[in-house]
Amino acid sequence: MPGLDVFEAINTARALRRLRPDPVPEAMITQILDAAIHAPSAGNAQNWAFIVVRDPGQRRKLGDIYRRASEIASAVYRAVGCPPHLTEAQFEQMLTSGAWLWEHMGDAPVLLLPCQRDRPLPPPGALPDWLEARRDQEQAYRERGRGASIYPAVQNIILACRALGLGTLITTNHMRLEDEVKAVLDLPPDLQTCAMMPIGYPVGKFGPIRRRPVSEVAFADRWQSPWPATNQ
Amino acid sequence: MPGLDVFEAINTARALRRLRPDPVPEAMITQILDAAIHAPSAGNAQNWAFIVVRDPGQRRKLGDIYRRASEIASAVYRAVGCPPHLTEAQFEQMLTSGAWLWEHMGDAPVLLLPCQRDRPLPPPGALPDWLEARRDQEQAYRERGRGASIYPAVQNIILACRALGLGTLITTNHMRLEDEVKAVLDLPPDLQTCAMMPIGYPVGKFGPIRRRPVSEVAFADRWQSPWPATNQ
Repeated sequence: MPGLDVFEAINTARALRRLRPDPVPEAMITQILDAAIHAPSAGNAQNWAFIVVRDPGQRRKLGDIYRRASEIASAVYRAVGCPPHLTEAQFEQMLTSGAWLWEHMGDAPVLLLPCQRDRPLPPPGALPDWLEARRDQEQAYRERGRGASIYPAVQNIILACRALGLGTLITTNHMRLEDEVKAVLDLPPDLQTCAMMPIGYPVGKFGPIRRRPVSEVAFADRWQSPWPATNQ
Repeated sequence: MPGLDVFEAINTARALRRLRPDPVPEAMITQILDAAIHAPSAGNAQNWAFIVVRDPGQRRKLGDIYRRASEIASAVYRAVGCPPHLTEAQFEQMLTSGAWLWEHMGDAPVLLLPCQRDRPLPPPGALPDWLEARRDQEQAYRERGRGASIYPAVQNIILACRALGLGTLITTNHMRLEDEVKAVLDLPPDLQTCAMMPIGYPVGKFGPIRRRPVSEVAFADRWQSPWPATNQ
């Protein structure tokens, strides 16, 4: 397998939903997992686990949960409406291509579920007084920053798949029915799933990703000051 | 700049805290931002913004906030204690290398702050009845999955920096004093910072990243079933 430039991988790792049923070599999956664990995590805590589901019965159960969770997701997307930077046609296309996956998640030869374990704060009274006084803020901070310790690993998985010629994408719809997913995977109560990633050889092709340009979303030194800052 | 293999980038993108004061070419920062915006986000909503801080006064203010936020972080790390997979010596080293950054964040020639805007649910009554009935669960789902739409972009930034020979890392300590950060950056109330990333030419070298091995954190088909599953 020849190497792939990191920018090329980043720029062409399209979300590929239609996957061939052919099995993915185990060594290749291990290489993807090895990419995942090289991601950073807060305090280098690596409080993660990765469940690789290939068993057909397990995939069928997860696929069923995903379909039902996606019906909820679809209703929410329609209720919230089209994001301002998408045309109605693009919004419909996004919902339609998503819909195909709702029915076929369980058909992917591999379902990879990155999971995360939260390390709770020590019980009340165990922190120094000044920290006890801001326990609620600390808890809110931990919840808001939680994704910083698992979604970098998810992006490494996406890029590793791209480099190996495998299609994948990140979806979190199933988390709406998290308890059912945990029951299927025998997960302990303190371990949460963070994504469901179908992996396989793609039917479609990798290719350029369209996004809002940097000039619309980047700013120099403060909000609303344009980037690039041509006067510097 | 010759290309860099994506696995090489993933495997050697160490957290490099000590950075030279030399400026980073603007075109290079734009290339990093372009990598960021190619990341996925839920519903392709791209509800993100990236603030590039080079102004010395702005960096000094952010550095001061970061130092005070890190004092809180340090106390919390010590109160929670050493993660099970680190030795006490490794834990001390982690805290010590972090401590250097607390004092020097503002010295980095570039501080990049990826931000995220949440699209709130429509007001009560605007959802179909069956969705109104699960509004609280939907809100909890959105909070838990929020990081899926910004931290993949953060990992792209880390890998782009690696490919360009620039040091960086992700830290979220400053979010403990989010209101102060937002005031410095003139951020609107609905835009939240998600990371503070110092970027510059590194004093140290890129190199292998040590992590818990795949065999300790990956499972086949269900929790506690070992990976690789050599019988398949």
